Amino acid sequence: MHHSRLSTVVIDCNTEDVDGAAEFWSRALGKRAVRMADGDDNYRDLTAAEDPLILLVQKVDHPGRVHLDIESDDIEAEVRRLEALGAKRIQRVKTWWVLEAPTGQRFCVIRPQRGPLEGRANRWPDPA
Amino acid sequence: MHHSRLSTVVIDCNTEDVDGAAEFWSRALGKRAVRMADGDDNYRDLTAAEDPLILLVQKVDHPGRVHLDIESDDIEAEVRRLEALGAKRIQRVKTWWVLEAPTGQRFCVIRPQRGPLEGRANRWPDPA
Repeated sequence: MHHSRLSTVVIDCNTEDVDGAAEFWSRALGKRAVRMADGDDNYRDLTAAEDPLILLVQKVDHPGRVHLDIESDDIEAEVRRLEALGAKRIQRVKTWWVLEAPTGQRFCVIRPQRGPLEGRANRWPDPA
Repeated sequence: MHHSRLSTVVIDCNTEDVDGAAEFWSRALGKRAVRMADGDDNYRDLTAAEDPLILLVQKVDHPGRVHLDIESDDIEAEVRRLEALGAKRIQRVKTWWVLEAPTGQRFCVIRPQRGPLEGRANRWPDPA
């Protein structure tokens, strides 16, 4: 048994200037952009305290887009569950997996971002 | 003076089968997909009652992606505000505007989706 839920909206920006990118989205959405607590300089965090979804601006080397992250307390089980629904594994990166949906969008399966998921996320039984 | 805020995450799917696309995302995210109250058959609504952001699957004729919508009680003023930040007008569609961010993503400025925005959204003064 494992848990997962939609956790994050990531605004991927093909830029060397992540602060400039975050500045646009910060002012567009009226949200303050701050550096990440973990010091990762490829991201800026636009999440407000009351936001249930995390909102990030990320510096990337592919064309700009928006992608979704699903957080899970068992990444391998979650990826297998999503594969059974038609998603494809694209690439393992650090602690997460990049998948591609049957509808074409890339998305990630990542570790729990804001504490344990039990009681706050979807609960998926082990395959029989 | 007008108001705006991030309102919606739209999963654009290049498909003739919007129910099949919504089925994947519904099961992936553990959210029920329902038809739109307004009868627009290009969309399925995955928003749960407690979700502050609306989550939609949309049938589109361009490559699949994810895009954001900003809701506003004065679309023209909001579009002008965003243009001043570097966004470009792409196309007016029905009641909304499609813009392109300086970081490359397309997004929309749409009418208020769930009631008046005053007191619940960013408040922007009129230009001097």
